[in-house]
This record gives sequence, structure tokens and C-alpha cells, in this order.
Amino acid sequence: MLFSQLFTKTRKEAPKDEVSKNAQLLIRAGFIHKEMAGVYSYLPLGLRVLKKIEHIIREEMNAIGGQEVLLTTLQDPEIWKKSGRWDDTVVDNWFKSELKNGQEIGIANTHEEPLAHLLTQYASSYKDFPMYVYQFQAKFRNELRAKSGIMRAREFLMKDMYSFSVSEDEFKMFYEKCAEAYLKIFKRVGIGEYTIRTVAAGGSFTTGETDEFQTFSSAGEDVIYVDEHKKLAVNKEVYTDDILQKYGLDKNNLVEKKSIEVGNIFPLGTKYSEAMGLFYKDENGKEQPVIMGSYGIGLGRLMGTVVEVLSDEKGIVWPHEIAPFQFHLIEIPSENTAVQKKAEALYADLESRGFEVLYDDRDVSAGVKFADAELIGIPYSLVVSEKLLKKNALAEIKERKSGVVKEIYPTSSVDTWTYPFTM
Amino acid sequence: MLFSQLFTKTRKEAPKDEVSKNAQLLIRAGFIHKEMAGVYSYLPLGLRVLKKIEHIIREEMNAIGGQEVLLTTLQDPEIWKKSGRWDDTVVDNWFKSELKNGQEIGIANTHEEPLAHLLTQYASSYKDFPMYVYQFQAKFRNELRAKSGIMRAREFLMKDMYSFSVSEDEFKMFYEKCAEAYLKIFKRVGIGEYTIRTVAAGGSFTTGETDEFQTFSSAGEDVIYVDEHKKLAVNKEVYTDDILQKYGLDKNNLVEKKSIEVGNIFPLGTKYSEAMGLFYKDENGKEQPVIMGSYGIGLGRLMGTVVEVLSDEKGIVWPHEIAPFQFHLIEIPSENTAVQKKAEALYADLESRGFEVLYDDRDVSAGVKFADAELIGIPYSLVVSEKLLKKNALAEIKERKSGVVKEIYPTSSVDTWTYPFTM
Repeated sequence: MLFSQLFTKTRKEAPKDEVSKNAQLLIRAGFIHKEMAGVYSYLPLGLRVLKKIEHIIREEMNAIGGQEVLLTTLQDPEIWKKSGRWDDTVVDNWFKSELKNGQEIGIANTHEEPLAHLLTQYASSYKDFPMYVYQFQAKFRNELRAKSGIMRAREFLMKDMYSFSVSEDEFKMFYEKCAEAYLKIFKRVGIGEYTIRTVAAGGSFTTGETDEFQTFSSAGEDVIYVDEHKKLAVNKEVYTDDILQKYGLDKNNLVEKKSIEVGNIFPLGTKYSEAMGLFYKDENGKEQPVIMGSYGIGLGRLMGTVVEVLSDEKGIVWPHEIAPFQFHLIEIPSENTAVQKKAEALYADLESRGFEVLYDDRDVSAGVKFADAELIGIPYSLVVSEKLLKKNALAEIKERKSGVVKEIYPTSSVDTWTYPFTM
Repeated sequence: MLFSQLFTKTRKEAPKDEVSKNAQLLIRAGFIHKEMAGVYSYLPLGLRVLKKIEHIIREEMNAIGGQEVLLTTLQDPEIWKKSGRWDDTVVDNWFKSELKNGQEIGIANTHEEPLAHLLTQYASSYKDFPMYVYQFQAKFRNELRAKSGIMRAREFLMKDMYSFSVSEDEFKMFYEKCAEAYLKIFKRVGIGEYTIRTVAAGGSFTTGETDEFQTFSSAGEDVIYVDEHKKLAVNKEVYTDDILQKYGLDKNNLVEKKSIEVGNIFPLGTKYSEAMGLFYKDENGKEQPVIMGSYGIGLGRLMGTVVEVLSDEKGIVWPHEIAPFQFHLIEIPSENTAVQKKAEALYADLESRGFEVLYDDRDVSAGVKFADAELIGIPYSLVVSEKLLKKNALAEIKERKSGVVKEIYPTSSVDTWTYPFTM
């Protein structure tokens, strides 16, 4: 893509009311736009990152047998009254509206109830299970305050998966499979080494514990106690002697850290299946409630976490798999038309071989181009200049993360380039 | 995909309150689920079709220079008050809600205002234009009645593009370019021969006419007068002598038809840019309002229209480019294990070469499998049976649309198959 055709521009300052680092950087670099507190639009660069995160999650959910659907934002109160979650004193972050005839409707903040209700029309025998159903769908949560940028928004895109099992063993097997898939996802989006499975409180869903995935960050709202060796942490909310003993953890091996919750997986038991009437006939013809689990990842929160954790004082540093482009091609303005020709040829060559390239063809100074490249954070920048041309160099490549710079000569044939590079 | 692993099932009957043919068939075949009147969830088969339609539209929008974004559902009333469209007497189909602090918010039914408002932060010079920005985003319209299935839903996915130009000529050039792109889209989704550009009333946006794209269908809510030769129609709402003269149409060459509006393109003039303060400095440094256009296609409506227009008494008939799968592989249950082995080998072979295959591996009768294949409407079914095996045939291929059946022998090597077939 030509930078000159991108409608966004980088900015020196973020909005004054924006206090979170993730939103400040993402707004300054032109990835997102703040509509209201906790409500952000995704601009072309930001949407590219969001789509890549979505693609990774979809691949991993399909790999464990997930079937993708798209449920609705508008919700029928009757379904939610059955589980007791329509009541604003039970769920305190509903957005509600009404139809022209005065009937109340909900703006979905989660989808356990509608999915369990839907499945009553398709499944009735033990032979129909297990089922793993997921979606990418906006969620709406009427947060009292929203000051964490895209990490805790009032409107956000979420991957929510729900499992439906007829035995506790099968449920547990899938639950662990999904936990593994989550660790793969966090590794692929670039925060694997900072993210750990964490024992957390059950909330209203279960009497036992649930599992969170927490990413170490000073911007986090959670406090966890980490056993680096065992790759397990405990959320402060359940940091008791009993829990430590249950999970074989020793206080002396734990380190306190602040962290961001980037995913969670919950056993739901039969709470929602019983409320919705999702029963199956077992092998003896006896009706039994389905055992459910839920598995969530907020895509915007994941993107915000990557920015919080990996950016530096110059700007964002995108990991390879979710970068909006693989290369940021910088043409240093010159009187010598050969420079532009060289840059154009390199751009065409890279694009023809399937690389995504942001080509800064603007008529601005080299300094502005370099600063924008650092702020936007594409993994590799390629510089084409008269100086390099005179040395018969093809370009100069710079890794955003390490700052390492190398000159590339025509002999180091572009045909053999692989991505990402080892620099 | 294995049919046995699909959680949906076909049904003999649609819900009693579902009067539209498109929703009846799509519900019976397991593509969609009705949550409430005018509110439908997309199930795995339906989402596959929706994603293919989205892919086609995205390709065509990118081809004419579109930049994709994702705006928000939650809307700040202040922006809408500037254009006068917050008022329920001006826009009568708002869904509204409120924040915890009591502040009203809108649930977006369109995005002219927020996008124009957003661009004031990025564009200020004539050099920044033109810009063409689009998104795929849910729209919410509080319709009094919703009886047309997914063709007029209260919640629906829409591709909405907006153009921003600094000269009337450039605007008109893009407007025609987008009209051509729309005709390409309708051709690719399989309704090209039934769809025609149509002169329509301007509504509140413009004093002149606007353009609709109308698909001939008895289920349509519109009446149009069609000149087949000139490939132009006139909507009944502007069917006057003046309009016919203006567009060079002769009453004697026009045929009255009922039709479904599958797309529309509007000149918006400077109404929203002036209201939002979207001005640019021209070459003389003088401030001018930006000239806007809007270009919409409802994805669910398009899908519903395809079903209305192309289905037959046996079920749905999907066009090649948007079919959920390319092949429906039917294994006729048999005591002879060679049949299953043959079917599995054919399934693996087709999938390995990138074809999408729904493999009916269920333990149900041949009759049930054939009826489901007709209802679901995948372009080609492949039957593997003992009878064919004895004749040394690989399979029997049947085109859903024509009903033409052919036997395939190992000599007609599957390696050379192309899609779609000419039967």
C-alpha cells in the first residue's frame, strides 16, 4: 500500500483525555480512533492487525474442532429471564433498548444463553455431542468507567467459544485442549513468553476455580503470584494456603507481578443448559443436562496488551504474525529519479511475491519518514536512498525490535528472502 | 467437513411465524436461526456463505481504491445532533440506550456522520482527497414490522462505503466506477442476469435522483419499469414523463416487474461534510466543504435474494462463488466396506487439492441424504455407492441447478477437474 493513499496520518499528541499507553500510541500512529470513552473505531492499519489476530484465533479454534457461527447483538429478554441474568442487579453492565412496540431488548454482553437455547433445536441425543461452537462477535458492556484504552472497552470484538459435553471426562479433555490452544495463540501473537496460565476465582459460574491467561504488564489491573518454573500462577483473589496446596505451589517460589488478563476459560457446569432446557437422552434413554464450558479472548484487549508490553519509547513494535505489513519501504526523497525507480521496483517485486509492504512515497523529509516508521512499528523497514545507490546497495534493512541495520546488495538476492529474518 | 460433525440438522418445517421463502429455506437447511422477528443468527453453513459474499465485495471495493475500517455500533449523540438526525422524528428507526451516568447513546443504523466527523482529524487539504472508505459493520434498524426474513432485518451486516471528493467531476467518476463494481459483485454472487441499475428517488439526501440495483423477484417490495435493451430501469416512485425523458427511456419499451433492492448508491452532496465541519483548503487556500457519496450493500439481503431468486421446489441452489461448499459427497450406506473407503479416499483427495467438500458420512438412508443435498443446494453432489463400484465407476456427479447426472470413471482423472464444471 502507498503511504500517500492511506487516509490516516500520524500525530504528535494523543487526545488529552486518553490516559492509557496502548490507546495513546495506537491513536498517534493512526490505528484506532476514539469515538467516546471506551469506544474505539479501527482505522485501516488497526483493522489489518485485528484481522490477523482473528485469523490466528480462527485457525487454532478450527484445529480443536470448533464450528464458527455468528450470533446476534439484539437479544430476546425471555431467554435471559430463564437464567436470571436479565435482572440489572444480577448483570450490572447491560445496555438495553426497546422495539417500536415497547418491548425491551438486550444488547448482547455475552452469549451463553442464546447459544444454549439455539442448540435445543438441534441436539437431543448423546450422539449429537460433543459440540464446540465459537464466534467473533461484538460485545457491549456498560462499564461505569473506561480508562484502559482498548483493553477494557464498552464495545469490543470477542472470540467466545462454548463447549457442550455429555461427560465430565470429555469436558475436561476439551478444556485442557483449549488451554493449550490459547497458549499457542498468545505465542503466535507475540506475547507467549510474558503470558501464563493462572488459577482464578470461579465467579458466579462455578464453585471451583477457573483459569485465566495473564500477561505480565505494569498496566495490568490484576496481581498474580507466578511460579516461573511450573508455568503456573495464582490470582491474588484466590491466593490462599489451601489453593497453593491444591495446585502444588510453594509460596517461596512465587513472584508477585501485575498483569493483564488476555483470556479466560470457565467450567459452566449445567447452570445454563438446565436453565435453557438443553438436555440430551443418554444411552439408557434418560434425560440429562449438557455440561458446558466457555472460552473467551477479547481481540482488542489482546492488541492493546501487545502494544503495552512490546512498545518502546519510539513507538509500537509489532510481532511478525500480527504486523499490519511485513515491510515499511522508505524512499529518501532525492533529485535523482533513479531513487524513486529503485524504490518502485523493490515495492513491485516484494508485492509480487506476496509480501505486504507499506511504501512511504510521500514528499516529506527523511526524518519524518523515519520517525513515522518507528511509531507505526512494522517489523522491518527498507530504506532506498541515493547514498546507498552510489554504493551499489539495493537497500538498507532495519529491524524495528532490535534496531539492527544491514545493507543489502543485489547479490543477496531478494528471491531467497524469508520472513521473518534473523538479523 | 464431515456432515456428522456439523451441529445443525435439516428440518421438515420452518417456524410457523416465518412467512418469507428465503428464511423458511435457510432455516430448514440449517443456515440461519431466528432469534426474534427480524433478528437472525448465522449458523456454520450460513456463515460460510456470508463470508464468501463479504470476500467478493471486499475484493471489488479494494479494486476501486477502497480503504477498509471498522466503525462502532455505540454512537455519540452530539455528532448526530449536528446533522439533525438524532431526532426520532427525523430518523424513525433508531435503537437508543444509555450509559450508566444516564447519558443517551445511539446504536448505529448508518455511519455518514461518524465517518465524516472522524475524517476532520485526518484531512484538511485538497491534497488529502479523494478518499474512499468502507466497512463491513452491523446496522440496527428498529423496523415496525419485520416479515421479509433476512431481506429486511432489524440487525444486519452491511457493506457501506463513503466517498470524499473535492470536485464534482471526480465524484461522478468514482460514482460510476462504483456502479460498475456493484454490477460485478451481483454477477459474481450469481444474480447478474436478474439485476439492473434503476433510477430512484433522492430521499432526504439529494434533490436529484439516486441509483438502486434491483433484482427481479416476486418477493420484492419494489415495482420497477425495465428497459432490457438499455439495461436501465426506473423505480415506480419516480416513474414520470420527465424522468423517462431525462434518461432517454420510452414507455413502450418498459416492462413492469417486482424487484428487491440489493444495493444503492447516493450522491450526498455537502450535507454531512458541512454539518460535521469536514472542510478542505483548496489550491487558493479557501475553505470548501467535501463532496460525499454513499454506497451500500446489505450482505444478508443479498444472500436472501439469491435464495428467493434461484431456489426451486426442492430447496436452495447456490451459485458457484458463494456456495458453502463446492461438493456434497454422498456415501450410500452399504455392507460393503469398500464403499466407505472409496468415499473417504475421494474426500481426502478433493480436500488435498483445495476443494471444499461436505461429506455426508451419516448413518441415514440414501433417500434422506439425497433430500438434504437438494435442500442445502451445494452446486455438485458426488455419489459413491456399491452399484457404481461394481461398474468400476468412481462416482456419480449431479449438478444441483440443472439436475444433470453423469458417471465418472477413473479414466476421467480427478486431477484435471476444474470448478465450476460444464455439464
